[in-house]
Amino acid sequence: MNIIKGIPSSDGIVTGKCHLLDRSKIHVVKYRIDKSGVPEEYKKLDDAIKKTEDYISHVREISLDKLGEDHAFIFDVYLLLLKDDMLVGETKRFIEKELVNAEYALKKVSGNILKVFNESEDEYFRERKSDVEQVVQKLLRFMSADEYESILNIDDEKIIIAHDLTPSDAAAAIKRKVKGFAMDLGSKISHTSILARAIGIPAVVGCEDISSNVTPGEEVIIDGFEGKVIVDPDEKTREDYRNKEKRYNKYIEELSKLKDAEAKTRDGERVTICSNIEINEEINIACEYNSEGIGLYRTEYIYLDKGDISEEDQFEILKNAVLLNNFNPITIRTFDLGGEKLSDVLPHPEEVNPVMGLRAVRYSLRFKEFFKKQLKAILRAAYYGDVRIMFPMISGIEEVNICKEMLRESAEELKSENKNFKGDIPVGVMVELPSLALITHLIAREVDFFSVGSNDLIQYTLGIDRNNEYVAYLYRPTHPSILIMLDKIITDAKNAGIEASVCGEIAGEPKYIPVLLGLGYRNLSMSPASILKAKMVINRMEIDSCVKLVRELKECKYARLAEEKLSNFINAYAGDVYFH
Amino acid sequence: MNIIKGIPSSDGIVTGKCHLLDRSKIHVVKYRIDKSGVPEEYKKLDDAIKKTEDYISHVREISLDKLGEDHAFIFDVYLLLLKDDMLVGETKRFIEKELVNAEYALKKVSGNILKVFNESEDEYFRERKSDVEQVVQKLLRFMSADEYESILNIDDEKIIIAHDLTPSDAAAAIKRKVKGFAMDLGSKISHTSILARAIGIPAVVGCEDISSNVTPGEEVIIDGFEGKVIVDPDEKTREDYRNKEKRYNKYIEELSKLKDAEAKTRDGERVTICSNIEINEEINIACEYNSEGIGLYRTEYIYLDKGDISEEDQFEILKNAVLLNNFNPITIRTFDLGGEKLSDVLPHPEEVNPVMGLRAVRYSLRFKEFFKKQLKAILRAAYYGDVRIMFPMISGIEEVNICKEMLRESAEELKSENKNFKGDIPVGVMVELPSLALITHLIAREVDFFSVGSNDLIQYTLGIDRNNEYVAYLYRPTHPSILIMLDKIITDAKNAGIEASVCGEIAGEPKYIPVLLGLGYRNLSMSPASILKAKMVINRMEIDSCVKLVRELKECKYARLAEEKLSNFINAYAGDVYFH
Repeated sequence: MNIIKGIPSSDGIVTGKCHLLDRSKIHVVKYRIDKSGVPEEYKKLDDAIKKTEDYISHVREISLDKLGEDHAFIFDVYLLLLKDDMLVGETKRFIEKELVNAEYALKKVSGNILKVFNESEDEYFRERKSDVEQVVQKLLRFMSADEYESILNIDDEKIIIAHDLTPSDAAAAIKRKVKGFAMDLGSKISHTSILARAIGIPAVVGCEDISSNVTPGEEVIIDGFEGKVIVDPDEKTREDYRNKEKRYNKYIEELSKLKDAEAKTRDGERVTICSNIEINEEINIACEYNSEGIGLYRTEYIYLDKGDISEEDQFEILKNAVLLNNFNPITIRTFDLGGEKLSDVLPHPEEVNPVMGLRAVRYSLRFKEFFKKQLKAILRAAYYGDVRIMFPMISGIEEVNICKEMLRESAEELKSENKNFKGDIPVGVMVELPSLALITHLIAREVDFFSVGSNDLIQYTLGIDRNNEYVAYLYRPTHPSILIMLDKIITDAKNAGIEASVCGEIAGEPKYIPVLLGLGYRNLSMSPASILKAKMVINRMEIDSCVKLVRELKECKYARLAEEKLSNFINAYAGDVYFH
Repeated sequence: MNIIKGIPSSDGIVTGKCHLLDRSKIHVVKYRIDKSGVPEEYKKLDDAIKKTEDYISHVREISLDKLGEDHAFIFDVYLLLLKDDMLVGETKRFIEKELVNAEYALKKVSGNILKVFNESEDEYFRERKSDVEQVVQKLLRFMSADEYESILNIDDEKIIIAHDLTPSDAAAAIKRKVKGFAMDLGSKISHTSILARAIGIPAVVGCEDISSNVTPGEEVIIDGFEGKVIVDPDEKTREDYRNKEKRYNKYIEELSKLKDAEAKTRDGERVTICSNIEINEEINIACEYNSEGIGLYRTEYIYLDKGDISEEDQFEILKNAVLLNNFNPITIRTFDLGGEKLSDVLPHPEEVNPVMGLRAVRYSLRFKEFFKKQLKAILRAAYYGDVRIMFPMISGIEEVNICKEMLRESAEELKSENKNFKGDIPVGVMVELPSLALITHLIAREVDFFSVGSNDLIQYTLGIDRNNEYVAYLYRPTHPSILIMLDKIITDAKNAGIEASVCGEIAGEPKYIPVLLGLGYRNLSMSPASILKAKMVINRMEIDSCVKLVRELKECKYARLAEEKLSNFINAYAGDVYFH
């Protein structure tokens, strides 16, 4: 038995055989081809080389802009490699000789090159294979139509152990009825974790090196509460977890009774509960829990999956989301990527502090043609339902007005293109920068609604990167400064007669719900997996005691005291919302 | 003639012969030794190897903590290299055979190794010399007692062109009467720029590749206003600049008349002007302009220069600063490094967003023994004058109370060590995180004074890295959210009866001074080079019109309008404060 600690990322317990997925690399499948199929494989390789060249040239251009010729030289090296006979010529010869697909041939040939690097006597050369690896990975990515095939190919009901998993993996996991996840990387708020919670699959992330500590087929227990993975459990442990699993199933059964219930406090205040949606596959789950709409439809996944996607393709995905959503309102947030994730799929300069860099609406406003494709796709999808649009990372009035102007232009263009669309949809902003939270009295005149992105708001207000383990201890939703801003936002919204909802993680975290109710929020949007728990908490609350709680929290000098107060409060009214 | 554009970083114009300084590397001087001197050179090398090993082991340990064994392997490679006979053995043989100093021998031997790398046929190997270079640079750094010797060795009155310059270079430049700077790297707010302005030397930074575009001894004009360097100017250009220089000298002459003047508005409000000090050499300049104390004594330079310095050595530097300061108050800010600059001198994990990471007081509170050395040095220096202590990057009440507790402990220790010190010195905080700016009504009860770090406050509030050129356009001191916070800070300070000063760049920027006066600030701390201009502006102001200006700025929906308003205002009252 071996117990591996990680970060608890999605509740639940599951026992089963594990499948070890090597996702640090793209999964390459080998298959045979006919002699007549060779030209097609050549073309696949050549196309990928062309796309990789374009991609690298683009990145190079952007880097030049910033760093000058010196630094961009590294990209020339990549470009040279794409013309290298040892790599490209040899791959083609391999295809022809062995009659196999291009991906497999490239993998084989590059593997041989890397082996030579590896066997070099010099430590430095051995260490320096990453350039070749990067180019090959990029080529493979452009070659494989569906790089996520591998999860779809594994057996049903397995537990997946991996180095890293993408949101697409999680999506594939729904289809394959995967029972649970554990992976080396990831944090509680990475996209994959969010998705695992939505789907209700137990998951443990940040295990550091679990992928090298299990053998395929070995029995494992995933404990999504404690963030533990038990490899090859002994009988006693098995028994303990069987009991825990039984209790958990009972708890879930209780919660499930709330599926059709209304979210209303004991003193009759109605609270609207909407869902945060990452991928269309989640919408059915949300509808099942009677979510009253999509308060936050994230478009990041579309880009992570498809890169610089056409207006038409975006439109199809969004229209599909609108149609799946049972005529409920859906708030679509425009492009909200930044940093490394962005660089993976679109040209983006390297940044010292990506969280404070060219991201989200800043990126959209710099690359306006790119942005317009999205705006037009959203307006076209709006033709099919109650669509609202929301801009992320807005810092002030000027930005939101430029966005609105571009939305008008997009409608004009659609009109002249004779396409079906709806032009006058409600426009809102994410309130997630302190600069915007402090001027909600001004911005309320310019938009139709606010949505509080509490995760980022807390992060910028406290000046901490919540993914940095060394400073994560400072991340505090009840820091008095955060309460002051949350208070101001809802008050300004009410005064202006517009809606303010909360779509950050705190909206779906039971213990913070009384705080939001006490502050005056009546619109919460959360991961589908949190909806039932939120209903339970709301149904137990009285607004007066929530108001009193907020007053007390504002007086707390120390984080520890505030946390204690919150725990006592939730335990007194809805202790059973948490599974123990 | 060749005109190279850069960032104007310090006002002034100067014409002269240039000295090209290669500061991308440590300057290694060659000198001969006797046969009897060989053991000493061996020891120098061995000591440096030991120190480098310790340094790398320490960094490795920290990385392990975070990244696991896989990543830390690269450090083992470094450690192996430190035992490599090709490098170390060969260097010793070179010392003995050629009878030269260890630094030179190491440089020669490593040069040969790098040459082999360079001549490799493979692009990748040629590119990959940086590991060897890094280890050698680290060794050289530990070997050279004064790595900044080279500026001290050049002729007086030269203009220096370099790839990069450290604050130490600038310090050396004072001694060598260097007439001006231009460099490839740097931004307006990098330490070197701040220092160049303090000293009053024209400087242009961020020229990208000026260091490869001038020949040593060539004539250049540095235009610190426009951010231009004219290489080999023609007669017409020379003439134009001679005139401009003349006008500038006259402007400086006018300003100089204000050296002994008091800073007082036309309606009799007294404003206290203090200085921001980077290195002790600046203190004399500050005193010359009748600075009323040091409002911000930065300790970063001490660490950048000496790394993990002992309590005793810190004490000597601080005591010297206190004594130089004419019995005026001096506010010492504790350790405030982060990111790359920190990694250069002390063990520090790599961070995705260092600006929101383990920096400043967060670093100090994690490494308490390290912090205590500084606290003790400050309390000991306080024995010699009016010293105050200030903590940077405080996010809430808890942190400042831990700092105060550690200060008490430090005093206890000093007492038991029988050292001279002063224990009960005023304690203040930098208000530079939105979370603190929003709770100044609470924090005012815990400290003796506030100092507003406007640069960081703006940066976190707007969620932008001011050094990122793609988003720098969003950096706006007059964003209404900033005005709201500045307003709250001074109001809360007044209500609590404590002092609030501003020590960010806006305190020394003429056009923002009326805004600060209008908000109620009467204590400004700035680069010594800004003091005379600040006095001129203040002497022309009436508080009422400043208050009216602030009211109008708060209503400005667009940055452009606010900027226009500010320019009109300053032009109407003190247009001559800017050199045209």
